[in-house]
Amino acid sequence: MISLNETHDVNHTSWVSCANQPDSDFPIQNLPFAVFRVAGESFRCGVAIGNQILDLKAAAAHKPFEGKAADALTACEHENLNPMMELGFEYWSALRLSLSRALRTGSTLESQFKPCLVPMAKAEFALPCQIRDYTDFYSSIYHATAVGSLFRPDNPLLPNYKWVPIGYHGRASSIDVSGQTFHRPAGQTKAPDADQPSYGPCKRLDYELEMGVFIGQGNPMGNRIPLDQTDQHVFGMCLLNDWSARDVQAWEYQPLGPFLAKSFASTISPWIVTLEALAPYRTGYLRPAEDPQPLPYLSSEQNSTLGALDIQLEVLLQTPGMKGSQTPVAQKQCMEKLSQSSFKHSYWTIGQMVAHHASNGCNLQSGDLLGTGTQSGPKPEEAGSLLELTKGGKQPLTLTNGEQRTFLQDGDTVVMRGWCEKEGAARIGFGDVSATILPAKG
Amino acid sequence: MISLNETHDVNHTSWVSCANQPDSDFPIQNLPFAVFRVAGESFRCGVAIGNQILDLKAAAAHKPFEGKAADALTACEHENLNPMMELGFEYWSALRLSLSRALRTGSTLESQFKPCLVPMAKAEFALPCQIRDYTDFYSSIYHATAVGSLFRPDNPLLPNYKWVPIGYHGRASSIDVSGQTFHRPAGQTKAPDADQPSYGPCKRLDYELEMGVFIGQGNPMGNRIPLDQTDQHVFGMCLLNDWSARDVQAWEYQPLGPFLAKSFASTISPWIVTLEALAPYRTGYLRPAEDPQPLPYLSSEQNSTLGALDIQLEVLLQTPGMKGSQTPVAQKQCMEKLSQSSFKHSYWTIGQMVAHHASNGCNLQSGDLLGTGTQSGPKPEEAGSLLELTKGGKQPLTLTNGEQRTFLQDGDTVVMRGWCEKEGAARIGFGDVSATILPAKG
Repeated sequence: MISLNETHDVNHTSWVSCANQPDSDFPIQNLPFAVFRVAGESFRCGVAIGNQILDLKAAAAHKPFEGKAADALTACEHENLNPMMELGFEYWSALRLSLSRALRTGSTLESQFKPCLVPMAKAEFALPCQIRDYTDFYSSIYHATAVGSLFRPDNPLLPNYKWVPIGYHGRASSIDVSGQTFHRPAGQTKAPDADQPSYGPCKRLDYELEMGVFIGQGNPMGNRIPLDQTDQHVFGMCLLNDWSARDVQAWEYQPLGPFLAKSFASTISPWIVTLEALAPYRTGYLRPAEDPQPLPYLSSEQNSTLGALDIQLEVLLQTPGMKGSQTPVAQKQCMEKLSQSSFKHSYWTIGQMVAHHASNGCNLQSGDLLGTGTQSGPKPEEAGSLLELTKGGKQPLTLTNGEQRTFLQDGDTVVMRGWCEKEGAARIGFGDVSATILPAKG
Repeated sequence: MISLNETHDVNHTSWVSCANQPDSDFPIQNLPFAVFRVAGESFRCGVAIGNQILDLKAAAAHKPFEGKAADALTACEHENLNPMMELGFEYWSALRLSLSRALRTGSTLESQFKPCLVPMAKAEFALPCQIRDYTDFYSSIYHATAVGSLFRPDNPLLPNYKWVPIGYHGRASSIDVSGQTFHRPAGQTKAPDADQPSYGPCKRLDYELEMGVFIGQGNPMGNRIPLDQTDQHVFGMCLLNDWSARDVQAWEYQPLGPFLAKSFASTISPWIVTLEALAPYRTGYLRPAEDPQPLPYLSSEQNSTLGALDIQLEVLLQTPGMKGSQTPVAQKQCMEKLSQSSFKHSYWTIGQMVAHHASNGCNLQSGDLLGTGTQSGPKPEEAGSLLELTKGGKQPLTLTNGEQRTFLQDGDTVVMRGWCEKEGAARIGFGDVSATILPAKG
């Protein structure tokens, strides 16, 4: 279990002064991890502070820490975060505490660390770690109901939904970091009135607004992870856009689930926000009283802390029309919000997903990525996909500039943002995840 | 396209004389690859010849080859086969040719290579390569129909089956090599007459008789692999037992497919038999004339060579009762055959599976493992799982010793064997894959 400690103290400020702006995603209470480089140099691990990145390889050269924090910082000298993530919670937490103190206003390490800062604007990002297995859950009951009603009008929410944290294995190889571009996928589809299927470019390309959960410490095969111990296994979270070819999905998904409809690309945000940084945003356990209580292996006395996380999420669209002739800065601002929701609406918590995943003895490994499934809220305008927002493509969205969308068009850029905010706690931001659709290959 | 060449010549014999026995799985025409060690030493790559293993690290020290074969042998000095597999078909083929000549009767390399032989009986095996993504297909129409009739009596074979090589993403972390033992998994199940599900040890534990296909050379994301080029991407094949918890599967699998019912363990045979070694066993393309012809991206002028592979497969069971008080050697012989079939009955070929997998631009990677799905033949006794052999557990099998089985019991060992055999070609064996079920953990 993660407790609040001095790293969460809202009174602390950083000598990296831009981190103290109230709207910064990356104040000293956040300290998320990524892998980055400056053009022409090698990739390395870093921590965000304001609009700067602390180069951990450069910082480690000063041997500034002791004990577990020193070991964790040494592990960050690698080209990705896997070696550090494998060390386990005590090491992550010790490193976070030491970084918090080192970046805090008045720290004696300021003079050593200042030359280790790199402006975020100059950074290129890579995947933060080598992703092992990728599992995608289906944890929003609002999404499951809305999608179920499109695919199975008579039977939208299946009887297992309120008992089983439904998930499926996903494709790891095609996951890339924000900034990804990919060609519109082709695939086999069959129109309802067609005699036979055909193969060609996807006509119903969609995004899915998800969160990603990185496993830090795994479990040996055959062992389970009790729900109360799941916090020790989760390193942190990111934003995840799980692109979906809806027409391919509709034709291929029975009986074994989505396959090529989801395996052409998935995009994550570069920063892993640690579960410890998110601790102030745990909410109570929100399951409706009229719903069945979870089976014992998915229940806990500690529900208050194993509960939901109130992470605000939004999706923005930038069409080629919006990019127009404007300057790069104006372009970046010229996007239209499609929806907004919160991860607190998830029917299953992260802890329940992890405990369920290992409940058959399946060995989770450091670097595994769990998707939460599309996060749609209870209101129609809180839907996390175009499939839902347009009622399966039947009700086009009209954008402010007059353009319409049922599904995504070539050149469209989809941006997702996430952040936590409330009175009495520091804002904890995820940054964003952005990716752009290229035309289908000939 | 793979052509027959001197490595397939049935007249060649080896100076490793046991390889020349007509019933040997590993004659000089086979030359499969594995990763092995002698107890106490480090894992290394090897090639089977008769009942011996050629230690490729030791052989490489002699620098016996030139050109691409030399480069491929150098890549085999690694602790697993990934670096060699990544090199591509021309390198695999050159190495095979050089090894064939070196192990052939009369080779001048005999004196150098003889000290590099290790008796197979002394070897311990590891996974032959680091498995990246694992995908499981569903390529036997007989299996799909039989299982479909149990899960969906009204709708056994779905309309997409004859058009789409159905597959789903599987769990890579829990795949291990022959000799694996694993605890009976626990999971959430719901009896048809129960009000609510419960969590406990699986009661319907089953094997699945599959083949595994290892990708050697991948494709860049966004590119496809034309059907006629799939041979250049497939390094080779192994046997695969894809253990299944049928009661967990029945409750969890809708709408996103199997998840925890399959992720607790999968077992592969240690030897990768190269696609080149299997070339003499290509058969014509067997799709029934009354069935729809595949879409163009799954069709080829070269169907005769891209066709099925006639690989004989059998499943054997050894119960704790059979192990009894006998000697280890007698134990090994005391097994009961449950079924026998051939991979030639597969509705989809390996080439079609690979071309379909990459048809949306999904990047396959060296080390990816594709399961073929359970290989059941047209006759009921050719079924590749107990689910089928016992009609969903309703018709128990009575074994020769009087024991009965619907599903597997603790202590049961399941062994699968595979081989190719016909007039005018050398026998090409896969060896076997064996694994044993331990009781559920408390």
